[in-house]
Amino acid sequence: MVEPFDVVDLIRQKRDGGALPTAEINWLIDAFTRGYVVPEQMSALAMAIYLNGMNRSEIRDLTLAMIASGTTMSFAGLGKPTVDKHSTGGVGDKITLPLMPLVASFGVAVPQLSGRGLGHTGGTLDKLESIPGWRADLTRDEIAAQLREVGGVVCAAGAELAPADKRLYALRDITGTVESIPLIASSIMSKKIAEGTDSLVLDVKFGSGAFLTDINRSRELAETMVALGSDAGVRTSAFLTNMNVPLGRAIGNANEVRESVEVLAGGGPSDVVELTLTLAAEMLRLAGQPDADVAEALVDGRAMDVWRRSIRGQGGDPDAALPVARESHTVRAASSGYVTEMDALQLGVAAWRLGAGRARPTDLVQHAAGIDLQVKPGDAVVIGQPLFTLSGNDQDRFDRALEAASGAVAIGNERPKREALVAERILASTV
Amino acid sequence: MVEPFDVVDLIRQKRDGGALPTAEINWLIDAFTRGYVVPEQMSALAMAIYLNGMNRSEIRDLTLAMIASGTTMSFAGLGKPTVDKHSTGGVGDKITLPLMPLVASFGVAVPQLSGRGLGHTGGTLDKLESIPGWRADLTRDEIAAQLREVGGVVCAAGAELAPADKRLYALRDITGTVESIPLIASSIMSKKIAEGTDSLVLDVKFGSGAFLTDINRSRELAETMVALGSDAGVRTSAFLTNMNVPLGRAIGNANEVRESVEVLAGGGPSDVVELTLTLAAEMLRLAGQPDADVAEALVDGRAMDVWRRSIRGQGGDPDAALPVARESHTVRAASSGYVTEMDALQLGVAAWRLGAGRARPTDLVQHAAGIDLQVKPGDAVVIGQPLFTLSGNDQDRFDRALEAASGAVAIGNERPKREALVAERILASTV
Repeated sequence: MVEPFDVVDLIRQKRDGGALPTAEINWLIDAFTRGYVVPEQMSALAMAIYLNGMNRSEIRDLTLAMIASGTTMSFAGLGKPTVDKHSTGGVGDKITLPLMPLVASFGVAVPQLSGRGLGHTGGTLDKLESIPGWRADLTRDEIAAQLREVGGVVCAAGAELAPADKRLYALRDITGTVESIPLIASSIMSKKIAEGTDSLVLDVKFGSGAFLTDINRSRELAETMVALGSDAGVRTSAFLTNMNVPLGRAIGNANEVRESVEVLAGGGPSDVVELTLTLAAEMLRLAGQPDADVAEALVDGRAMDVWRRSIRGQGGDPDAALPVARESHTVRAASSGYVTEMDALQLGVAAWRLGAGRARPTDLVQHAAGIDLQVKPGDAVVIGQPLFTLSGNDQDRFDRALEAASGAVAIGNERPKREALVAERILASTV
Repeated sequence: MVEPFDVVDLIRQKRDGGALPTAEINWLIDAFTRGYVVPEQMSALAMAIYLNGMNRSEIRDLTLAMIASGTTMSFAGLGKPTVDKHSTGGVGDKITLPLMPLVASFGVAVPQLSGRGLGHTGGTLDKLESIPGWRADLTRDEIAAQLREVGGVVCAAGAELAPADKRLYALRDITGTVESIPLIASSIMSKKIAEGTDSLVLDVKFGSGAFLTDINRSRELAETMVALGSDAGVRTSAFLTNMNVPLGRAIGNANEVRESVEVLAGGGPSDVVELTLTLAAEMLRLAGQPDADVAEALVDGRAMDVWRRSIRGQGGDPDAALPVARESHTVRAASSGYVTEMDALQLGVAAWRLGAGRARPTDLVQHAAGIDLQVKPGDAVVIGQPLFTLSGNDQDRFDRALEAASGAVAIGNERPKREALVAERILASTV
């Protein structure tokens, strides 16, 4: 076949600050998928995009080209609205676990096609795989059956959804080109649009434990994704939420499942509950239920019921004991006062080093490894009081984990002002 | 082995505009040579270097690291000064062919380790391979023998000289990162310093047919390379020369050899003679012969004698007939007047499309293919007079070659002012 474009010419255009037209972007992604454009070329292009950016029309074209590289799904046959949530990733972010059953308990279909963790941020599938027997890989028929019978499903996005994005993401991960707004936005939205959801709520993190630490960059990412969703006919809202401090009190896998079950039982840490309710209310608003009493559904057991059926439907035992680590080490307060800071990035890296996360996509995670926080910012502590406990199976991982966590908790004389968890909202119109 | 650095961290540093320290650069090039740093990562880094640059100390470190990736040569045992010339590449640039024997005829050793052409600029080895029997690939012993017995040698740089540069160049070629001053400077100078020459004269082109079209960028490249050479103990001078117009009247391979032999016989186009004499005089000045009468050595046959011995020493027959193309097509003046422009890039691309050059490193060149110019800028022409003749073996290549050459020659009513061939000089001190 005669190729219509010269890939080096297109890389040069982006390198020199130009915008790539639609036909060129379509060809690039198709030729990359076919293997004609080689990974070296895509890596150089990703760096040029990182440094020179992309305009809105290029980002939309890139997103659509990623979608066109694979197949799409549709849940129109279910006869009920579908709504999904996506988080850009944080430390202790287990919100999907209580959120999916909570929203599904209102009769809305929640197809949560999720990923695995890489680096210091955890992955929803890794967390759920702590549950004995639970399976992340479902066929399309199994996904549809779960949505029909349980109302919600959390599972792996199949390889056929936006495969070009998967290949590009693997390159970005090793070439220092992850933190690019056009590339993040098109990566996330290509999968969500291909998945065929009616509505989408985005939880865009900012702060030390987030991919984009600066709230202004997070806002730009959120606005870009909301525009992409709207253009593609997906009602899309976004929240900018604070990730300076870990979410909840558990960082890891099995311990995050435990904390999620507490929330589903009407308890759990207040920040996890607050974010779960905020996102659930918006998801239900987009699905046509603006007055849903989401708090009540956590207390009265309806959400818990969907959770249990969902876990069972994917081969898991909701009553099975979760794995427990063989070793643990508790860090205690070196002085008395108030906890003023608790750095999400440092604690995320420490949990990762304990084995809760992976350095390479092929690594296995240790489900019992992680960190449990005994205090949160604003709490008063006395010298010697436990601050957090590291858990894991390999004693030799503790030194490097403690090194990462060193100084993560600051203690001062004055009680700090509480930072708002939800900083900003960009809400889609439902009319 | 435990790697001392994280390659993604180093890519990020350059991406974010930082400077890479010496140890980091040494490790990067070593790890790239070992295969630990993968081509995708080097491609992204090359783009980051292209866009964010490198300071002088980084460029020096990169050059030294490239040298350290292979072995070095030394001609100290010859007992005579060694001097080399490097051109950044142009259209019709056959200067090495008459220059090497001319300088060698003064008892100076001229080790011209050369490359092949890629894209619209020709390669010295491709040109010489038009001569039946001539071999570019010599062993180190053969190189030393030619230098001892003939005085000069033009041959391929062995794979053991700066191998990291060869691998990096292959990536740059496919990723749109060729035209980067730090990368060009370190690539050229690593090979020249590794080659072990005492002195070096650089012919840095600017204008339409050059890699860097802008004279300011060419000056920056020249100054960077002169500094690199001086720092490494190589006396280095540079000339900025005009490449808006092809050099001489022949563009190709066999026809460029013919033109070079004319120059060695005391004739040839005035621009080729001028540049040959300018570079030869500077090479000899650096080698301790500031008063060498280089013009005389072209006229009296001394240079021709070295040429013939050099060709024979490398298996070639200096009296053999050179290949002639089967097909040709002459473009004629569409109006009368003066030739005001003759675009080097367009004519270089046309010759390339005829088969004189290669698109990929593995392509073979057609030695008989090329272009002969019947006129040069400043010449008066009448309508219908031949301007240039395209030659080649494949009739089906002519259309695209003619398309590339279309409009390359401009004819106007006023005789244009002659542009200086040698625009600027940066001369090394010899004391």
